Amino acid sequence: MKNICLVLQYLGTNYCGFQRQKNGLSVQEVLENAILETFNQKCTVYPSGRTDAGVHAMGQVVNFFVNTTIAPEKIAIVLNLKLPKDIRVVSSCEVDLDFHSRKSAKSKTYIYKIYNGKQLSVFDQDRCLFCGYQLDLQKMNESAKYLIGTHDFSSFVASNTSTKTTTRTIFEAFFTKDENNYITFTITGSGFLYNMVRIIVGTLLEVGRGKKPVNIMQTLLEGNKRNMAGKTVKPDGLYLKQVNY
Amino acid sequence: MKNICLVLQYLGTNYCGFQRQKNGLSVQEVLENAILETFNQKCTVYPSGRTDAGVHAMGQVVNFFVNTTIAPEKIAIVLNLKLPKDIRVVSSCEVDLDFHSRKSAKSKTYIYKIYNGKQLSVFDQDRCLFCGYQLDLQKMNESAKYLIGTHDFSSFVASNTSTKTTTRTIFEAFFTKDENNYITFTITGSGFLYNMVRIIVGTLLEVGRGKKPVNIMQTLLEGNKRNMAGKTVKPDGLYLKQVNY
Repeated sequence: MKNICLVLQYLGTNYCGFQRQKNGLSVQEVLENAILETFNQKCTVYPSGRTDAGVHAMGQVVNFFVNTTIAPEKIAIVLNLKLPKDIRVVSSCEVDLDFHSRKSAKSKTYIYKIYNGKQLSVFDQDRCLFCGYQLDLQKMNESAKYLIGTHDFSSFVASNTSTKTTTRTIFEAFFTKDENNYITFTITGSGFLYNMVRIIVGTLLEVGRGKKPVNIMQTLLEGNKRNMAGKTVKPDGLYLKQVNY
Repeated sequence: MKNICLVLQYLGTNYCGFQRQKNGLSVQEVLENAILETFNQKCTVYPSGRTDAGVHAMGQVVNFFVNTTIAPEKIAIVLNLKLPKDIRVVSSCEVDLDFHSRKSAKSKTYIYKIYNGKQLSVFDQDRCLFCGYQLDLQKMNESAKYLIGTHDFSSFVASNTSTKTTTRTIFEAFFTKDENNYITFTITGSGFLYNMVRIIVGTLLEVGRGKKPVNIMQTLLEGNKRNMAGKTVKPDGLYLKQVNY
């Protein structure tokens, strides 16, 4: 029995999220079917974390246990033959039997893409949030700085979620803007609550528009103030960039 | 009666090309339906040129005649409300009654995108050609230079095409490569034959791989040597960038 680790890319647009669900096609279902077809074994795939419907991955990490004589680094190639083109295995390798994609992860980096120009291009549909308002990036960056450190993020969690703890550690959180009016928010943390990144971005966009003060973050990080935070922005612009071990 | 000119973007992936066809959904059909819904008038849309199935547009230009009191520059907004998100009107304006998108055009610029790295990302599927071979860009650029000027392009036309003349003028044709292994071929010409850009790219890729000599272009431009030219590359990487008037 080998523990195989995969780095995955996927376009989330056509999936109900990573996790297998009764009503809708998930990345997990498609991947587990490809593994079943390839190895003739029913394997469960363990991800570094779920991604929501519509959220993309540049570097999702998963692992699964399988009996095989295929060289671990060739598994990427054979699985790609069975996978649709919006899911790609970037690399595969064998890892220690006690490696677990989620439990072994030290941190995860998400990015959120915003187009702050005149009109969203057809090439950015489902891949980028459109924001037509003028945004004060300096204020957004000042506000984002409050996130860094270990905090109670209960103000940034979808109301219908039950989690054991809402404490998470954020290592970096900042915005950059390129010459073509694309804004990228990068956030690295020990872990993220359901919808947490999307609520953080929604809040910081309101800071950027002058609808909320820069220090709103301080208030929100006192906990349990979901109604004072911004809206949950669309999943379109969200990408799981990488998982760090 | 007003002559309305639109600049269009579209993702060609889900269409059988620009031109209306019996078997398949075309950009023209979708656009004419949106115009019918908006103005309650059946209008024919005239493009600067057809694009094939799977080919994208960053700046296709079309015109149509309509009776309306809607301000010409607002037509983009109202049409976008009726159009699917893979077709967008970038701008609209009124033009002289004798303006014709195709006949009035002085030249058109196409680009062709090639990814010359290890593996095509999910985000580039249907939008970029993957080429895993090492390519000699200098040789490709040398060979592309032969294209500039007025020539008989009958070696670069799909065999099943009937056109009055195969003479076209090319103003520029060159490759650039960025730091992320994306290669872009830019070509501007008075007009293009069916599949012409895709056969040119197919030929130049063989030059880049060393399978054909740099001066193959000279031979091909003598005319009627389709069998000596390269393959027709996939439409995925082809974009109508702009039409020049």
